[in-house]
Amino acid sequence: MSNRSAVLYGTTDLRVEERPRPQAGPGEVLVRVEAVGICGSDVHYYDHGRIGDYVVEGPMIIGHEAAGTVVATGDGVDPGLQGTLVALEPGVPCRVCEQCRAGRYNLCPDVVFFATPPVDGAITGEVTLDAAFAHPAPAGLDAEQAAMAEPVSVGVWASRKAGVGPGDRVLVTGAGPIGLLAAQVARAFGAREVTVTDVSDFRLGVARQLGLIARSAKEPYDSEYDVLLECSGAPQALTAAMRAMARAGRVVLIGMGADTVPVEVPLIQSRELTLTGTFRYANTYPVALELIASGAVDVTTIITHRFGIEQTEDAMTIAKRDPQALKAMVLPQT
Amino acid sequence: MSNRSAVLYGTTDLRVEERPRPQAGPGEVLVRVEAVGICGSDVHYYDHGRIGDYVVEGPMIIGHEAAGTVVATGDGVDPGLQGTLVALEPGVPCRVCEQCRAGRYNLCPDVVFFATPPVDGAITGEVTLDAAFAHPAPAGLDAEQAAMAEPVSVGVWASRKAGVGPGDRVLVTGAGPIGLLAAQVARAFGAREVTVTDVSDFRLGVARQLGLIARSAKEPYDSEYDVLLECSGAPQALTAAMRAMARAGRVVLIGMGADTVPVEVPLIQSRELTLTGTFRYANTYPVALELIASGAVDVTTIITHRFGIEQTEDAMTIAKRDPQALKAMVLPQT
Amino acid sequence: MSNRSAVLYGTTDLRVEERPRPQAGPGEVLVRVEAVGICGSDVHYYDHGRIGDYVVEGPMIIGHEAAGTVVATGDGVDPGLQGTLVALEPGVPCRVCEQCRAGRYNLCPDVVFFATPPVDGAITGEVTLDAAFAHPAPAGLDAEQAAMAEPVSVGVWASRKAGVGPGDRVLVTGAGPIGLLAAQVARAFGAREVTVTDVSDFRLGVARQLGLIARSAKEPYDSEYDVLLECSGAPQALTAAMRAMARAGRVVLIGMGADTVPVEVPLIQSRELTLTGTFRYANTYPVALELIASGAVDVTTIITHRFGIEQTEDAMTIAKRDPQALKAMVLPQT
Amino acid sequence: MSNRSAVLYGTTDLRVEERPRPQAGPGEVLVRVEAVGICGSDVHYYDHGRIGDYVVEGPMIIGHEAAGTVVATGDGVDPGLQGTLVALEPGVPCRVCEQCRAGRYNLCPDVVFFATPPVDGAITGEVTLDAAFAHPAPAGLDAEQAAMAEPVSVGVWASRKAGVGPGDRVLVTGAGPIGLLAAQVARAFGAREVTVTDVSDFRLGVARQLGLIARSAKEPYDSEYDVLLECSGAPQALTAAMRAMARAGRVVLIGMGADTVPVEVPLIQSRELTLTGTFRYANTYPVALELIASGAVDVTTIITHRFGIEQTEDAMTIAKRDPQALKAMVLPQT
Repeated sequence: MSNRSAVLYGTTDLRVEERPRPQAGPGEVLVRVEAVGICGSDVHYYDHGRIGDYVVEGPMIIGHEAAGTVVATGDGVDPGLQGTLVALEPGVPCRVCEQCRAGRYNLCPDVVFFATPPVDGAITGEVTLDAAFAHPAPAGLDAEQAAMAEPVSVGVWASRKAGVGPGDRVLVTGAGPIGLLAAQVARAFGAREVTVTDVSDFRLGVARQLGLIARSAKEPYDSEYDVLLECSGAPQALTAAMRAMARAGRVVLIGMGADTVPVEVPLIQSRELTLTGTFRYANTYPVALELIASGAVDVTTIITHRFGIEQTEDAMTIAKRDPQALKAMVLPQT
Repeated sequence: MSNRSAVLYGTTDLRVEERPRPQAGPGEVLVRVEAVGICGSDVHYYDHGRIGDYVVEGPMIIGHEAAGTVVATGDGVDPGLQGTLVALEPGVPCRVCEQCRAGRYNLCPDVVFFATPPVDGAITGEVTLDAAFAHPAPAGLDAEQAAMAEPVSVGVWASRKAGVGPGDRVLVTGAGPIGLLAAQVARAFGAREVTVTDVSDFRLGVARQLGLIARSAKEPYDSEYDVLLECSGAPQALTAAMRAMARAGRVVLIGMGADTVPVEVPLIQSRELTLTGTFRYANTYPVALELIASGAVDVTTIITHRFGIEQTEDAMTIAKRDPQALKAMVLPQT
Repeated sequence: MSNRSAVLYGTTDLRVEERPRPQAGPGEVLVRVEAVGICGSDVHYYDHGRIGDYVVEGPMIIGHEAAGTVVATGDGVDPGLQGTLVALEPGVPCRVCEQCRAGRYNLCPDVVFFATPPVDGAITGEVTLDAAFAHPAPAGLDAEQAAMAEPVSVGVWASRKAGVGPGDRVLVTGAGPIGLLAAQVARAFGAREVTVTDVSDFRLGVARQLGLIARSAKEPYDSEYDVLLECSGAPQALTAAMRAMARAGRVVLIGMGADTVPVEVPLIQSRELTLTGTFRYANTYPVALELIASGAVDVTTIITHRFGIEQTEDAMTIAKRDPQALKAMVLPQT
Repeated sequence: MSNRSAVLYGTTDLRVEERPRPQAGPGEVLVRVEAVGICGSDVHYYDHGRIGDYVVEGPMIIGHEAAGTVVATGDGVDPGLQGTLVALEPGVPCRVCEQCRAGRYNLCPDVVFFATPPVDGAITGEVTLDAAFAHPAPAGLDAEQAAMAEPVSVGVWASRKAGVGPGDRVLVTGAGPIGLLAAQVARAFGAREVTVTDVSDFRLGVARQLGLIARSAKEPYDSEYDVLLECSGAPQALTAAMRAMARAGRVVLIGMGADTVPVEVPLIQSRELTLTGTFRYANTYPVALELIASGAVDVTTIITHRFGIEQTEDAMTIAKRDPQALKAMVLPQT
């Protein structure tokens, strides 16, 4: 049986081709992949062939924000899972190391993560995954929504790191897909108010449509924030936003881009700001799926483009061509 | 009765002169000041006439690391306190604002703090203070040790912010008085091992004498740390030390000096480091005094110089003249 | 000017009479009281003349869930507050003791609390309060809603103690006013689902009307809960609910009534349950007001009865006469 | 080769007999067992054939506080481990379930734990264990000290649960082996003072010898404690000690024995005490070993009796015969 896959051979060299169909090993499920969101990191691998120390050295199937239906189960897995729509948590940790035992499995140095070289990703017909990382979607969700559990997980992790709760005024810098999701998640954590900034009027319009406060990143801040979720990756956004933080404020760096940012030490000290970053997520999928299912986080509005697997390269490049693109979704079965 | 005081008139203009003797108001104690440590911030005011937005605009008594004996009590204060040796917590907050009510009184915007312009400090014969901030010293402590509760408090606050405990490998960059005290405090919090770095062989020798691991700041790191207490204020020390942090490591910025430091975002993200700063301290004095009294923190070894009040200017400048100076103590009654 | 007040002289001896009109001292506001909710503790004082060690020994104005309009301001208070609707946080702590300095001002042993003997309460024409504890109501709130910030605060404190957040299945035992509010607050903290139990069909009906899951306290539990907010005060409710807790579950005892409850140690140990209690609240009023203003917590549905000040005794006894009474409100200006 | 083992067949039916020598499977080490401490739970199985729902239904090797030397390694394990002294963490969790992924592997429902029916324990010549749970002992430790990492882990877990740190006055009720170790661990966490109570003068004498404050359990408390580590399992000890807790105190139930204890709700509420229990431990072994190696926790003084494997039954019963018995150690190679 065919297993059509989107394979990255190197910088801007993406080919859709047949790959062997995998089989579910012990403890695994075999999943027919129905929706895979394109993430900035996928595009970065496509554009540059690497992210930091991770280099695409051989052909690698791309994509890691995936969902689909279980079609087979390996030894030790409940066969009743067949037919279930699952969101695929893309990183399976070693479970043995100090980080795993401490519950910080996202920091496991030996994690096997979809589409992080040399591990194959999920834009393919069928894929295998450890059953514990294939999370059943609540009733009513479709595959696209379930696939969005991945970027929503980024938001859940950020709100947990920041300790978002009622009373908090939350600022989200950057209204791309991650920012728009992280902002909605912060609201679901009970935040008193959530403000999103961006330079794009289109994106600010989507933020408003999602019920968020939207303001231009060009305007100076005129109020104080308890939490900053930095999703733009722009050093100047971070600098300006940190000056708007209230005493004891918490800053989470989510956006990538800058290697080094200048941080004002007297600001951190005199207000006792806390600053941290997120690396993927741990124990977030069930919560993310539940936030999508309850409607607390609207993911559908953010999915602006859909492609069949043969058009995966278009999905990779849509963000450059269309300023109104947010999340592009590849549907591998079409 | 005379109240001889060390008064800063402006940059490098320090005069020892008579000042009116204060009286204990309601809720206050009157304390005969017996020992006042000289802090880097005192020296900074002496050298530059300002620290950031705080400018010495009129004559101000200097000094804030003080201890002495209660000689009178105001209305509502137990008269039995007379004759008690007390460590003077130098900042009295408003107790009304949001920060005070949340227990973060160190972040109170209306705090009245010794020797922070325009508030007079404690190098004087007698001084008044809110009784709740005059902490009785445990039996056996002398005034110099009690005065050291202030810089020890900085260390207690840092170890609390970092959550230091058994299992933690702690790195302290900078072996000045604050670094040497913060390192001992971290050990008292149960840290598995505490390493201190500096460029001065003399300071590293004192660190070793205090039972700490000492290593040159010039050598590259060859192991990982869970906690960094940055006490040097040097950006390059921070950069090098952050690269030596273990996953989920915690960084506390204590040292002042640099306005802006370059921070590597991928490092913070991929290891999920947490970075914060300290601004003074809250609820630390009883613990600090107890650590000194139990011998867990040796403060006496760090007191390298003593001066009478007439020599306060010498105390301010000793650090520049003598590379083997650590903490200079002014004894206002001599 | 008259200052009509509801004064408790002893067990079931409540008299409405004139009292001197107070004046705002330094730091205080004078508030025209417009709404005061009747709390179970008020009724307990009325019925029994005491609660534990607190005994009504002389005449005491009753009531502590109050809101009204600022009509005068004392020295040091912004006169612009006049005309503002404020919710009155009923306990003013000493601000000096260890508990206050640590931010746990609800545990201050010297707190002065409305209608806790011998301190007068708030069912009176005008009352004074420390301005820092008179919380301006957000736009759109009326006095009744603002007065409800007190029981909502109990819920906020409970959800904070329990660390309620997304993913949590919350069980609330007891659907009286506190239970119905605590349940709504837990939902606003992001709880995945909130289930309320009671023996009263009427109360369960109100719970459903508020969008909560309602189930009879007589039915055995068939699922697991991460958080228990015990609001019934019934030992058997606690025992049954604790057996339904998931591993690492958190239990908060809010309801009063039982002096001693039997707790199963093997249950606490084998599941590592955490159990704590709430005593009033700290730093909750702004959040409580905001939850009411946003509509996240519907307080109006819970207010089932309203009385003029002359009918305060009816307000005290309505719960006994009418099984469909939830919160009774006294409007002192009517 | 022989594999002499102490096998429990049922109530007070313990036989020492040959068992097949196991082989290290993939990821496992084979360890020559050199020391195994006898725990109260071992004695309980010996005396009663069960602990709660865990029933000894077939022959089971007893003992779970073990250490020894690695003599062989399975596939995927560094062969260089051979010859290393290791402490054996007795419970290997499933690593897949929700509890494991959250870092709470001690609450894993599928944990495989030495000498918990039907899993064989460690009083045997050689035993296999997952390599990740065989913790290398620091230099200088002998096998008996390494075996004590198990009960020391109980203390580490308790101090973590209680958040013990500098400033805390800690009360430990019960001066058996667990109490004496938990008390020393609390001191190593920086506790301001640690008081141990018991009814046995002998045990109180050992407590004093270990540098702890010791007082008779019969005397009423005359001071306040921030932390209670309940190690006696006696309900009356818990009741008395809870009344001695300071506001915001933390109580940890470690001792077993009572099924149900009466808890005073007004006490928990008015002081906002927090009460929890411990079930084994997670991520404690490296810390426990380090505390033993540094001398912070003296385990040797607590080992009062040693037996060869043929005398295992004597080790089980020594506590009943000798009131001066604390920890009995079985040395399976002798």
